[in-house]
Amino acid sequence: MSKLLSTIQSPMQLHGMSPNELNQLADEIRETLCSLMSIRAAHFASNLGVVELCLALHSTFDFRRDRLIWDTGHQIYPHKLVTGRYDEFQTIRTRGGLMGYPNPAESEYDLFVTGHAGSSVSTVVGLRSGDDLMGVKDNHCVAVIGDGAFPSGIVFEALNNANTLKSKMLVILNDNEMSICPRVGGLASYLDRLRSNPLYTGLKQEIVSLLNKVPVLGDPTERMLAQIKEGVKAGLHGGMLFEEFGLKYFGPIDGHNIQLLKKYLKMVSEINGPVLLHVITRKGHGFEPAASDPVYFHTPPIFERRGDEVIIKKSTSKAYTHHARDAIFDQLKHNPRVTVITAAMCQGNALEPVREAFPDRFFDVGICESHAVAFAAGQAKAGLRPIVDIYSTFLQRSYDQVFQEVSLQNLPVTFMMDRAGLTGPDGPTHHGTFDIGYMRIFPNLAVMAPGDANDIGAMLDFSINHSGPCAIRYPKENAVEIPRQLQPVELGKSELIRDGKDGTILAYGIQLSECLAAAEMLQAEGLEVRVVNARFSKPIDQEMVRHAISETNFVVTVEEGMLHGGFGTAVIEAANDLGLDTRRVRRIGIPDKYVEHGERGELLHDLKLNRDGIIQTCRELAVRFCNVTAHQAT
Amino acid sequence: MSKLLSTIQSPMQLHGMSPNELNQLADEIRETLCSLMSIRAAHFASNLGVVELCLALHSTFDFRRDRLIWDTGHQIYPHKLVTGRYDEFQTIRTRGGLMGYPNPAESEYDLFVTGHAGSSVSTVVGLRSGDDLMGVKDNHCVAVIGDGAFPSGIVFEALNNANTLKSKMLVILNDNEMSICPRVGGLASYLDRLRSNPLYTGLKQEIVSLLNKVPVLGDPTERMLAQIKEGVKAGLHGGMLFEEFGLKYFGPIDGHNIQLLKKYLKMVSEINGPVLLHVITRKGHGFEPAASDPVYFHTPPIFERRGDEVIIKKSTSKAYTHHARDAIFDQLKHNPRVTVITAAMCQGNALEPVREAFPDRFFDVGICESHAVAFAAGQAKAGLRPIVDIYSTFLQRSYDQVFQEVSLQNLPVTFMMDRAGLTGPDGPTHHGTFDIGYMRIFPNLAVMAPGDANDIGAMLDFSINHSGPCAIRYPKENAVEIPRQLQPVELGKSELIRDGKDGTILAYGIQLSECLAAAEMLQAEGLEVRVVNARFSKPIDQEMVRHAISETNFVVTVEEGMLHGGFGTAVIEAANDLGLDTRRVRRIGIPDKYVEHGERGELLHDLKLNRDGIIQTCRELAVRFCNVTAHQAT
Repeated sequence: MSKLLSTIQSPMQLHGMSPNELNQLADEIRETLCSLMSIRAAHFASNLGVVELCLALHSTFDFRRDRLIWDTGHQIYPHKLVTGRYDEFQTIRTRGGLMGYPNPAESEYDLFVTGHAGSSVSTVVGLRSGDDLMGVKDNHCVAVIGDGAFPSGIVFEALNNANTLKSKMLVILNDNEMSICPRVGGLASYLDRLRSNPLYTGLKQEIVSLLNKVPVLGDPTERMLAQIKEGVKAGLHGGMLFEEFGLKYFGPIDGHNIQLLKKYLKMVSEINGPVLLHVITRKGHGFEPAASDPVYFHTPPIFERRGDEVIIKKSTSKAYTHHARDAIFDQLKHNPRVTVITAAMCQGNALEPVREAFPDRFFDVGICESHAVAFAAGQAKAGLRPIVDIYSTFLQRSYDQVFQEVSLQNLPVTFMMDRAGLTGPDGPTHHGTFDIGYMRIFPNLAVMAPGDANDIGAMLDFSINHSGPCAIRYPKENAVEIPRQLQPVELGKSELIRDGKDGTILAYGIQLSECLAAAEMLQAEGLEVRVVNARFSKPIDQEMVRHAISETNFVVTVEEGMLHGGFGTAVIEAANDLGLDTRRVRRIGIPDKYVEHGERGELLHDLKLNRDGIIQTCRELAVRFCNVTAHQAT
Repeated sequence: MSKLLSTIQSPMQLHGMSPNELNQLADEIRETLCSLMSIRAAHFASNLGVVELCLALHSTFDFRRDRLIWDTGHQIYPHKLVTGRYDEFQTIRTRGGLMGYPNPAESEYDLFVTGHAGSSVSTVVGLRSGDDLMGVKDNHCVAVIGDGAFPSGIVFEALNNANTLKSKMLVILNDNEMSICPRVGGLASYLDRLRSNPLYTGLKQEIVSLLNKVPVLGDPTERMLAQIKEGVKAGLHGGMLFEEFGLKYFGPIDGHNIQLLKKYLKMVSEINGPVLLHVITRKGHGFEPAASDPVYFHTPPIFERRGDEVIIKKSTSKAYTHHARDAIFDQLKHNPRVTVITAAMCQGNALEPVREAFPDRFFDVGICESHAVAFAAGQAKAGLRPIVDIYSTFLQRSYDQVFQEVSLQNLPVTFMMDRAGLTGPDGPTHHGTFDIGYMRIFPNLAVMAPGDANDIGAMLDFSINHSGPCAIRYPKENAVEIPRQLQPVELGKSELIRDGKDGTILAYGIQLSECLAAAEMLQAEGLEVRVVNARFSKPIDQEMVRHAISETNFVVTVEEGMLHGGFGTAVIEAANDLGLDTRRVRRIGIPDKYVEHGERGELLHDLKLNRDGIIQTCRELAVRFCNVTAHQAT
């Protein structure tokens, strides 16, 4: 198995390969991808879709000096397989193994760690400009970007700027008619029209040549003739939208035909200046179940394969994402002014039932987070109560709209920030670890994190009835319920879950259950530790901080976010404002570095962001501040 | 003077006006704008350009229930003059007076405080969607956006989403061939082509009607005929780029002809679904000096007017902006790998001499901040040392690129963050008060603020030679030089400027001179106060923090930024990490609310962010912690 693929140490080996060999390689790559899926949840359909494109690129260009950026980056697997990483491939998305995205630390063929959509065209324009200035003139700079990522605003900013380039730059639009969910919007309709173009390139070329022979002179009638001529050319060409930006457009062509791809790559690589090559692929190509349901097979759970059939090993646990979805559903059901907005994450946020039940108040705007937030602000101004359901890390893409359109106007928009904290196997591009710090610095915003599954609904209910904007952050994790008399959510109020006199643990978010378990263990050692469900990082519960510091011997803050500027920092800021001593406060969270990929449990363990880490910290503090000896405390 | 304008209490009065009256009103508005310019620096050329458009809009629509958003918002003056604010108009941009941007607190006719470019289309799509769901179906939702703001990515995200709308929505493209600086990019070339379209609407309509009569059937030849027909229509129409997104395109039309504008507004207002009306105006129209040099007259200094001539009262002081520019110039001069990138702020950042001297390494990407940063990252990857020269508040627009393309990749990009802190008369949309908090939470980034004019060049030099990304923030302020033996800038090292044993002032940024003046005053009262030029908020100088807290009786941190998450917070975080007592640390900065517009000096005084405020704080702390009595200390 993988006879040929296993011999590929460098993509330069592809240059001499015959069409049959390249096709065999495509088969072996596809087989390798399918095998991986029986052992690991990973990106699948998108990778199956670019196998031929990847081989055509590497057999045409020399990316040791040519430049290649895979936008978004989750379709990087075939690229990894032909750039010397076949042997390690089975480690992908595991701690210490290959990253599921491009990674310069792994290979000279990976230039940027990508993961967020849309920036490839900008970075390639920058690389092109940089190479020009550094005197590298004759190389090729290539971005491969899907039609899902294409409507991201930054792509148009880059296209707008690309016309300044006079040297070789190629944007390959990988059009599979999909975002992560089915694509939406005016651009999608435009691409559909291009795809349905019945004319072939040969014929087009002839007619265009003919039209080019029509003379154009100066008087108004002839200028009109020229207009018509240009119009006809545009109609024939297709791609006028891109040509208006100053790019030369070619396509659409079949993205699963390696030889055809190579022919076109060769042709467009002769052109100086920016070129857009429109390539049609099919997500999941070559493996029927994935091709039929590319949404499900975007990142499917582990499955067993029997020929072309798959048997899914379903998980029965309910994640915070699902509790959030249910709470959103409930709000939409009871309040006609509530809407929900997603940026192509209908599946990731498990919103399909919401979309089905409330199609008029469900808005998928595509991978356009900036627009999503400003759009929500417009809705709020009109009297609605929009919920922006979004991954924490992707909200960074609308940071200025959170500022200007929401916080500054003090509009009642709710941010449901999913995947806050460590997302696990996706790694640093997807971890949502900055949000506490970057959100709580804006006036008017209330920033919350649920302590357990029950808090989510209560917090959303609070938010929908609150007069200003709110953010609720929760991680990619299975939900627990902490048995208690749930106290209502009040602005800036924490919830005392367990009392104690020796120390206090202030839990911000779902580490609450670990904190309670830690307190239980510590009690067995004779330490009575108070546990508080902080609920708000902004406004912070000053009275709670005062009580914790003045009534107990030590305070531990726990959060799944950056220590700089985070919840623990909000606690010591409050203590500073209150004139309280912070020497007995210890902050647990994520230190000032990027956390790599791995299972959430592994990463949390490394960071001492679990029961054991909390216990250990409490013991250390007890030794210092509670007159217990190390022996007693361990 | 302003006989008619002074009688306008409500824009509804415009509905019955004759063409002559509207023209008279236009003249009076223009005269009022010109008068203002002899007493105040304010936005000028853009306001002169939209006088007729504003009157046409208000005499056609009823914006008590119709919706109007002026994108970017600095062209709001004529709108303010006809919506009941004529009497207060002379107060504009002064503390307590009218804001220089739309402001819902002033008038029901202002829906959003705008100031950052490009979000109007999104908010109008949101308003339209919100009105539809709230049952308001027959009103009109209008965005007016300039061609400078138009290439902002969020505009395309919004256009892409607008095609979902079935009710009335109008985008007016106010095309004056300008960004703040001359516009650039593929879209600009496209608009130039549209403008040069020699065909008039009447003729176009006829030909299009004719073409519509050509039958279209199903076989390939006829489908080809249909393609040609569509191509011809597109060539005639112009605006195909917008039509591809699903908007109906009209124009271009003369934006200084009120009756023509009214005719078109009436016509397009009948159309359900999104429409783009392309209007040609001239920045500075009606006042020749401004029309001839709209860049200079964007926000000119106060001038004296003699007919159509102006006498400028020039300022001779040198601002931090100019020191930054000189430092950038110097780097470009001595290092061929240094480039500079601006997002249409060539004038605001005083970069014209850089553009002249180094045209190949100067990049104006238009109002496209996201692209600017990702583009810089691409250049850095190629081996260059790009400087992104940008206003602090606008860097928020590329927050996700700062994260993914720069900080995560650890690329040597330098951010020169101008207008950091309080910008003064522009107000809350332009104050750059969040940057310390939002930048220092990213790993790898070094975040600096110069203590005086000399620090800027030293910091930029440090940054260009540093292996990772750096940010340097400085305000809109005249520069001072603090006489001293300048110590070299070292990563994470502060600079002791004046020693003292009673207390310490840690100054982050240009308040350093006020801190030194305060220390001087306090010495006369018998208090010896140490003053430190902190230089870095990230990494923070831990040893300096240790010395300050352990060697002196109190510590005051001073910064022109939000207290939440800012420099003072970095100090107490460091103290917390070091196990030091923070009760004797007091943080001075901007509290958790939006600061309104006003002169910088006024605003800083209000916030106690000046010499007097610092002295007062030190005295209070001395009473508490230095065994001096209140009497001694005052």
